[in-house]
Amino acid sequence: MNPTESPAVVHLVPGNTLITKTPEEGRQLAVKMARLIIKTTQPDATVRERLRSVYTEDASMLIAITQTVALEFATIAAANNYWK
Amino acid sequence: MNPTESPAVVHLVPGNTLITKTPEEGRQLAVKMARLIIKTTQPDATVRERLRSVYTEDASMLIAITQTVALEFATIAAANNYWK
Amino acid sequence: MNPTESPAVVHLVPGNTLITKTPEEGRQLAVKMARLIIKTTQPDATVRERLRSVYTEDASMLIAITQTVALEFATIAAANNYWK
Amino acid sequence: MNPTESPAVVHLVPGNTLITKTPEEGRQLAVKMARLIIKTTQPDATVRERLRSVYTEDASMLIAITQTVALEFATIAAANNYWK
Amino acid sequence: MNPTESPAVVHLVPGNTLITKTPEEGRQLAVKMARLIIKTTQPDATVRERLRSVYTEDASMLIAITQTVALEFATIAAANNYWK
Amino acid sequence: MNPTESPAVVHLVPGNTLITKTPEEGRQLAVKMARLIIKTTQPDATVRERLRSVYTEDASMLIAITQTVALEFATIAAANNYWK
Repeated sequence: MNPTESPAVVHLVPGNTLITKTPEEGRQLAVKMARLIIKTTQPDATVRERLRSVYTEDASMLIAITQTVALEFATIAAANNYWK
Repeated sequence: MNPTESPAVVHLVPGNTLITKTPEEGRQLAVKMARLIIKTTQPDATVRERLRSVYTEDASMLIAITQTVALEFATIAAANNYWK
Repeated sequence: MNPTESPAVVHLVPGNTLITKTPEEGRQLAVKMARLIIKTTQPDATVRERLRSVYTEDASMLIAITQTVALEFATIAAANNYWK
Repeated sequence: MNPTESPAVVHLVPGNTLITKTPEEGRQLAVKMARLIIKTTQPDATVRERLRSVYTEDASMLIAITQTVALEFATIAAANNYWK
Repeated sequence: MNPTESPAVVHLVPGNTLITKTPEEGRQLAVKMARLIIKTTQPDATVRERLRSVYTEDASMLIAITQTVALEFATIAAANNYWK
Repeated sequence: MNPTESPAVVHLVPGNTLITKTPEEGRQLAVKMARLIIKTTQPDATVRERLRSVYTEDASMLIAITQTVALEFATIAAANNYWK
């Protein structure tokens, strides 16, 4: 079974909307959306926890995470017209 | 024979449209479109399955996947005017 | 001789246009345009074939390819106003 | 406990706005927002300090950081209509 | 002496314009602009030639180059309103 | 002391504007802005000089630098409405 083919279980966009009240919430959404991709790709929580202890101690991976969040946030910020 | 030269077999854009009803479906489309590029580049399902067991256990690759999805989703979200 | 300096031989944009009839064709164009950059940078078909056997078996490189295609497709999709 | 689930403690967007008076301040905000993602992912200041001594001596990681800042700044600059 | 501080010698944008007649020429410009950054960062032609023999035989680096060109081309394509 | 917390000393955006007269100057600004992020992250000039001798001899890092410049330039070009 391919876990990613049961989208009814794992939701990829919390609340099913990109609209948030504030930049702070938009930023949180960016982080969550990135994590949900990790979760849908690696559905085993034990493995994810193990990998977490790897990337949180690895400067290079932490920097890569900031790139992901920046990319997700760009879309969310545009969706919200930059909260102007 | 170069498998990528038979686009009639592998479809790169499911439904041949970027328009989706919701952000959740747009996100699913982003994941699928990225996978179809993998599939068209590596058409052997056995190899893909083997590689899958590699990247799902590798924090760095999982993070790279989130970057891909973020990039694909940016385009899909713009196509849907952010579902506003 | 620097092969990249003979653009008359290698065409970088098939059809010399970013406009396609459908998203599927746009996606195919994205793949082709990325490959033509590889071809213009490494004009030796034998070397390219050897490298192909490397990256099609390497999860990390396959993921990197999906990033490239996502980037190229973003431009093509915008050029086509997302086929709306 | 997952520290990233207490957004009330760590703020991800200083001032909760993307609007800044000048490009210089926008650039500073880009740097800060990237760091706050590091902080929320690795909340242990001792570990962060150790990793800092790694990436500040590593050319590859420093370059990766410039990519992150460029991405964040793109969003902030657009939000401010490029301070025009 | 820092060679990058003599912009009068190395030009970073051929013709000092992003406007091109066709997508093909825009693509060529993207490749050239990327190379000029290499040249300005590593002004020694002998070193560049040596490095060229490295990256043209390395699948991972060739893929990274396609990402660079895709990014440069996105800007050039937008500047030309996608040659529509 | 964290050197990055003295923005009065290191300026991140030369001239505090993204507006330039020409694409060439915009490109130079992109390079400078990327360097200033390196400088603010690694304020020790001796270390930076040592790292410079590393990345100017490393094809992979040089390519990564072209990605950074492409990203910065995209923002600057948009800010200048592509100098049209």
